[in-house]
Amino acid sequence: MDAKIIQAATALKDKTVARRRDFHKHAEVAWTEFRTAAYVAQTLTDLGYQVSTGVDVHDEASMMGVPSKAELEKQMQRAIDQGADKAWVDKMAGGKTGVVGVMKFAKPGPTVALRVDMDANDLTEATEEKHRPFREGFSSVNKAAMHACGHDGHTSIGLAVAEVLAGLKDELAGTIKMIFQPAEEGVRGAKAMMAKGVVDDVNYVVGMHLGVNLRKTGQVACRTEGFLATTKVDATFTGVPAHAGAAPETGKNAILAACTATLNLHAISRHSQGISRVNVGVIQGGSGRNVIPANAVIKVETRGVNSEINEYVYNEAVRIIEAAAMMQGCSVKMELMGGAAGCGNDDALVERIRKVAERQKLLPDILPSGNIGGSEDCAYFMERVQKNGGQAAFVMIGTELAAGHHDGFFDFNEDAFVPAIALMSGAAADLLTQG
Amino acid sequence: MDAKIIQAATALKDKTVARRRDFHKHAEVAWTEFRTAAYVAQTLTDLGYQVSTGVDVHDEASMMGVPSKAELEKQMQRAIDQGADKAWVDKMAGGKTGVVGVMKFAKPGPTVALRVDMDANDLTEATEEKHRPFREGFSSVNKAAMHACGHDGHTSIGLAVAEVLAGLKDELAGTIKMIFQPAEEGVRGAKAMMAKGVVDDVNYVVGMHLGVNLRKTGQVACRTEGFLATTKVDATFTGVPAHAGAAPETGKNAILAACTATLNLHAISRHSQGISRVNVGVIQGGSGRNVIPANAVIKVETRGVNSEINEYVYNEAVRIIEAAAMMQGCSVKMELMGGAAGCGNDDALVERIRKVAERQKLLPDILPSGNIGGSEDCAYFMERVQKNGGQAAFVMIGTELAAGHHDGFFDFNEDAFVPAIALMSGAAADLLTQG
Amino acid sequence: MDAKIIQAATALKDKTVARRRDFHKHAEVAWTEFRTAAYVAQTLTDLGYQVSTGVDVHDEASMMGVPSKAELEKQMQRAIDQGADKAWVDKMAGGKTGVVGVMKFAKPGPTVALRVDMDANDLTEATEEKHRPFREGFSSVNKAAMHACGHDGHTSIGLAVAEVLAGLKDELAGTIKMIFQPAEEGVRGAKAMMAKGVVDDVNYVVGMHLGVNLRKTGQVACRTEGFLATTKVDATFTGVPAHAGAAPETGKNAILAACTATLNLHAISRHSQGISRVNVGVIQGGSGRNVIPANAVIKVETRGVNSEINEYVYNEAVRIIEAAAMMQGCSVKMELMGGAAGCGNDDALVERIRKVAERQKLLPDILPSGNIGGSEDCAYFMERVQKNGGQAAFVMIGTELAAGHHDGFFDFNEDAFVPAIALMSGAAADLLTQG
Amino acid sequence: MDAKIIQAATALKDKTVARRRDFHKHAEVAWTEFRTAAYVAQTLTDLGYQVSTGVDVHDEASMMGVPSKAELEKQMQRAIDQGADKAWVDKMAGGKTGVVGVMKFAKPGPTVALRVDMDANDLTEATEEKHRPFREGFSSVNKAAMHACGHDGHTSIGLAVAEVLAGLKDELAGTIKMIFQPAEEGVRGAKAMMAKGVVDDVNYVVGMHLGVNLRKTGQVACRTEGFLATTKVDATFTGVPAHAGAAPETGKNAILAACTATLNLHAISRHSQGISRVNVGVIQGGSGRNVIPANAVIKVETRGVNSEINEYVYNEAVRIIEAAAMMQGCSVKMELMGGAAGCGNDDALVERIRKVAERQKLLPDILPSGNIGGSEDCAYFMERVQKNGGQAAFVMIGTELAAGHHDGFFDFNEDAFVPAIALMSGAAADLLTQG
Repeated sequence: MDAKIIQAATALKDKTVARRRDFHKHAEVAWTEFRTAAYVAQTLTDLGYQVSTGVDVHDEASMMGVPSKAELEKQMQRAIDQGADKAWVDKMAGGKTGVVGVMKFAKPGPTVALRVDMDANDLTEATEEKHRPFREGFSSVNKAAMHACGHDGHTSIGLAVAEVLAGLKDELAGTIKMIFQPAEEGVRGAKAMMAKGVVDDVNYVVGMHLGVNLRKTGQVACRTEGFLATTKVDATFTGVPAHAGAAPETGKNAILAACTATLNLHAISRHSQGISRVNVGVIQGGSGRNVIPANAVIKVETRGVNSEINEYVYNEAVRIIEAAAMMQGCSVKMELMGGAAGCGNDDALVERIRKVAERQKLLPDILPSGNIGGSEDCAYFMERVQKNGGQAAFVMIGTELAAGHHDGFFDFNEDAFVPAIALMSGAAADLLTQG
Repeated sequence: MDAKIIQAATALKDKTVARRRDFHKHAEVAWTEFRTAAYVAQTLTDLGYQVSTGVDVHDEASMMGVPSKAELEKQMQRAIDQGADKAWVDKMAGGKTGVVGVMKFAKPGPTVALRVDMDANDLTEATEEKHRPFREGFSSVNKAAMHACGHDGHTSIGLAVAEVLAGLKDELAGTIKMIFQPAEEGVRGAKAMMAKGVVDDVNYVVGMHLGVNLRKTGQVACRTEGFLATTKVDATFTGVPAHAGAAPETGKNAILAACTATLNLHAISRHSQGISRVNVGVIQGGSGRNVIPANAVIKVETRGVNSEINEYVYNEAVRIIEAAAMMQGCSVKMELMGGAAGCGNDDALVERIRKVAERQKLLPDILPSGNIGGSEDCAYFMERVQKNGGQAAFVMIGTELAAGHHDGFFDFNEDAFVPAIALMSGAAADLLTQG
Repeated sequence: MDAKIIQAATALKDKTVARRRDFHKHAEVAWTEFRTAAYVAQTLTDLGYQVSTGVDVHDEASMMGVPSKAELEKQMQRAIDQGADKAWVDKMAGGKTGVVGVMKFAKPGPTVALRVDMDANDLTEATEEKHRPFREGFSSVNKAAMHACGHDGHTSIGLAVAEVLAGLKDELAGTIKMIFQPAEEGVRGAKAMMAKGVVDDVNYVVGMHLGVNLRKTGQVACRTEGFLATTKVDATFTGVPAHAGAAPETGKNAILAACTATLNLHAISRHSQGISRVNVGVIQGGSGRNVIPANAVIKVETRGVNSEINEYVYNEAVRIIEAAAMMQGCSVKMELMGGAAGCGNDDALVERIRKVAERQKLLPDILPSGNIGGSEDCAYFMERVQKNGGQAAFVMIGTELAAGHHDGFFDFNEDAFVPAIALMSGAAADLLTQG
Repeated sequence: MDAKIIQAATALKDKTVARRRDFHKHAEVAWTEFRTAAYVAQTLTDLGYQVSTGVDVHDEASMMGVPSKAELEKQMQRAIDQGADKAWVDKMAGGKTGVVGVMKFAKPGPTVALRVDMDANDLTEATEEKHRPFREGFSSVNKAAMHACGHDGHTSIGLAVAEVLAGLKDELAGTIKMIFQPAEEGVRGAKAMMAKGVVDDVNYVVGMHLGVNLRKTGQVACRTEGFLATTKVDATFTGVPAHAGAAPETGKNAILAACTATLNLHAISRHSQGISRVNVGVIQGGSGRNVIPANAVIKVETRGVNSEINEYVYNEAVRIIEAAAMMQGCSVKMELMGGAAGCGNDDALVERIRKVAERQKLLPDILPSGNIGGSEDCAYFMERVQKNGGQAAFVMIGTELAAGHHDGFFDFNEDAFVPAIALMSGAAADLLTQG
């Protein structure tokens, strides 16, 4: 079967590159992946998968950091204008762009989920000759939207894997579930799909990422460490404006509240049981120089090496923010904007995938582990599967990068596609034949 | 002569109202008063004044808070599109929109300056029926520009006074200097005209304002108190960005610098010798939630009941801002964005104007003083004249207000025009006949 | 009568100097003036006054900043050891050392109160030859207690006035009330005597102070301005200790709470209606360098040009302190340690006293007003009398100072005694004869 | 040899308990261990060791947190009064109480150092019946000095080990160096002895501690983790005092500087490469509630899992403290009060000691590692030996504790003595026979 898989993967190379460049050119940011997702949905349908999207695979209350209704509607129209099928787009109204494709095989067996992500970054792509996507004409046509984290590649790989597995359907047992997730940037999308139960019946879940700290084609790590649990929260302080010269004492100063909160947030105690983090990445407040400022917002994130430590930091943060508002006689509203669990990989599953890689010989440089060095909300799927007694792993596949992730010059070596398709297909096939 | 002046003022009522509404409809914010100023320049020229504008009446280095070159050019074109004379507009390139009209009379005598301001506020005008300018069709057609402080009235009164005095030219002695100042909002404009020497030869300078704390037609105060000296400064902190999860220690946090500065600025000690103020009215920083923020700006203003106290607060502020940058390993750039002197009115001049008001009987309710309750950069002209041995006064003229100054529903009772024209003309005529 | 009074005052000079030096040598700080007060009580009794002290003239709940029971008992014993009458001291148990002497005259008339203060400062007296009290052997024998504000002089003057008035008893009408107040330092004592009703029946109250901004013998001001209303409060934060290396996250950091409170207290907005102040004069917290600090105290005072503004600042302070505690998960206890009202002098009474000074000619340099430049809790008596329809004044009497108030080298020119005694006696006599 | 050692250790039990109780009763805090050290020096001399102390074993410039000269002299006299030999005490003048005993054996071999500490805590011992030292009459007679960390036990064990090894001298090869260190509390003493070269010729160094996280007799860990590098620094801010009511603007506020520093110190970024810590454990500032405070001190400590990370935190702290001073126009003086390196244990040495423990069977519960959970300046000796190519280990020996370390009720089970003496002697003997 390994040989078949490698052959199929190789045959899909050009199609995968073409898709990746098409997705790259029509980059869509979190919750607006209408064109990408419609293409995914149609492709999976054509391959024989039973496809769900929209309300069927998202718990609306758990969707975080969703754009305004007006923006979503504008993006839906934009997607249609760029060729998306209106029927699929309509099903994804409200930004519910996640897609799940399921194929049950004749023989009984485990349910295996592969998960990839689809969204681009809020970034303007570089427009210099040295940037290949610009030079070769596939740089983003959408303003302030650029695939600078490789999700265009992930989606394309996911579609190729779906095709490889569909081609093997008579040989496989159990069920394959292809999960195409929106809004991974800002870790906003996985929770809603997880909360809807998308992985509740899954025995094995495997996620993947290109690049990160594996920057050579041929490298692979079947285990990824460094998933930090995280919570993203916006705190909006509201005070009372006043003329700063004539009657300052009648104001309630929202900027002072935000600044006091910011200092004290950064001063949250380190945790003796492991890594903790807190950051106020953005602050904005006030209306005019001579007005006691009546509004201010801070964009905060907390992290922890596990969910307990992240929760410690987050609880400290909430109390600090509320007290800062009280201190200045302001009110404050906190809105959750994202979150991810912290989690580990299961040794047994890691080992099985590693053996597939060894057999396939397409990725000769097998490293003990990659390091995501931050947060990935695939952890929500992984944690849920583990809690249900299943196993989870996250595979990192090496590729040369033109610039770091989230950089306007980001690009990667598409030679990583064939080995990635082969490994993910091979891992799934292994699980769907050996149980 | 009082009778002649009153008659002339009364005859100018309709023209003044029409001009005011035209200025109101074509509201122009600080340094972009191209259409208003061109109209002023042409009108003064037609009345026989020798008119200067542009580089002749502005010290470029002292112009504060000037828009970008691109914005200025856009506004010049906008003004021309709205009917401004291109020749005048071109002379005002770079935002140098102040206009000075001089008329020397045959007989020798003192130089008297009257000063009015021309700019609108950065504000979107109300669009409700209850708002008269909207109802009667003269609300602003320019986006985010609205006369909400009465400067449209001031300019119109200034033009009428120029006309009254021109009509009296055979009876007057000395020189009248009509000063039409740009960019009073944010106290950005007077300093540049003063620094260019516009009032260096002036013996008496009189400024004026409608409304403020005199909210009934018929009220007048020939003295205005409460001029606070002020400095406006933007502080821009620059640090080093870093991934907040993966390598926070490699960052230099500009938001922490800005927040520490903000708290300590508000904590500057009160001054025992009189009123002091400090405000951080606006804060903005950071690029993304998960990035150690490498940039932040705070918009600060300091005030004092006199220049010494303002300077004390300002010097404290500068030291605090520099230390806050150092504290976080950031650099900081401070840019002066505006300023006004603090100053008083001369008793002798106040008394002379008061007697004119008494004689004219158009403003029966003479109050001992008005209160500007903030900062007015007319103080720069007044302070300079006083330093040269001359006298200064600032007259407040009552009028009913539909809403407070700087409110989207601001409007005033135009019945205040005739008595205002008469008083300002009468005061000038008094000085230009009695010396 | 003026002549009689001057003669009597002159005759009391040596006795007054001797008493002052005795009080100086046995300086007693706030609420521990047992020896001084016992001497006052006995002297007034001997002069024929009806004397009240202890529970009869103090509202215990309103006594602020009282030492511990143990300390009070130690001080009672110390006073007795230094010659105080045990019977009087026992009546003053609990620190209730205020003394009121009342003499009703045969003829009906107004009730006039004169108020002086008795306490020393928490200060160690200078021990250098250049310091006269040290050189001449009357510097304080009590550790950390020194009369560095002239209250030793005030008490001595009060006793002399009592004697002068007793000598005039057949010529006076109404009632004289001599009030000897404890604990003026820290403005802790007046409120308790006022709250007990000591001035509820008073028509005129006159306070006095030597020196301050009148630093020449011969100067006098019959009006004193600059009384700032004030509140003194200690805030004690309690958190949870933890090992700063091994388990910092289990602590609740009281020092962080105190520091956040301190910064935000100083950042309380200035008040547009007049002078406001806030100060954190003392901070103390923590137990060891490597322990997350579980305790911290800040000693705060707020001030305002009137009680309303002081209350504004105080209310802001309370909210800030409570929020700072909440922010760090700490509790906080606030304890009122002192307070004074803000108040003015009544023109009519000031004028009457001024005329007495004019007639007596002992204080030739009559200034329009003195300035207390801070807080004096005599304001509590004055405000209460004014609220009841009576009149109040506070007299400042000039004297040369060897060093500023509250300085270890403080001393004053005792030549001020005779004119002070004469003026205070004369003012009282005037009120007690003319009504 | 194991049998001989166990026998010798057992024979020394009573003597060791008696010594421990004597040291406990005469507890001496850092740099004042005159009596303890004099006893140690004499005992080692009597056993045949060549003994050095005073200037010979301390680099004065590296002594941190040393008491004042007056205090040291007082403590020298106190020690003599409590029976210390004056000759030894005099050699230790200046607090140089460290003692080194060297014994060279006839045969050539390695130099092995054993290190124990001698100082007590700044703590008042509990005086309740339930506290055994109090109940049995050996609680501390010295005020604010209590052995609450077991160093009394360490010193006693050290003396017993010295005696055991002296008894084996004919069988050993190389050199044994017994190091008795002062001032471990606050990690102030090791650096000075290390800097003097005390371990420059050492091939193996072994330290030890009773208790910590091994709270059962019979437990032992031959490796100790969790040594955090640390720096202790006091920052003293000096400003300018001013009357907070009358002239606050003339002050320079040292408390504001200290509070701003404190908040920003706690906000120092976490380090991605490992554990970091910072704590402001103590703050003290100000002189009076109504005075702008002109002085403030903060007691700070930084830590890191290794010296690089500690240095990062420390460098951040220094910059923050200097900037905070500048921000308030204050000066600041920083004084190093202590420090420790971070370090690891050498596997080979750990394994050798573990085998000794296994053979001796006195400590049946051998754990893989203990955790010092903080800082121990033995790390200075260990790091130096490792840098010279030698090996280091730190042994933790279990004992039941009556209360946690640094608690007024601290006490431990003296049954731990015999196995501790045996293990330390055995480890040394092993190294001194096997090389």
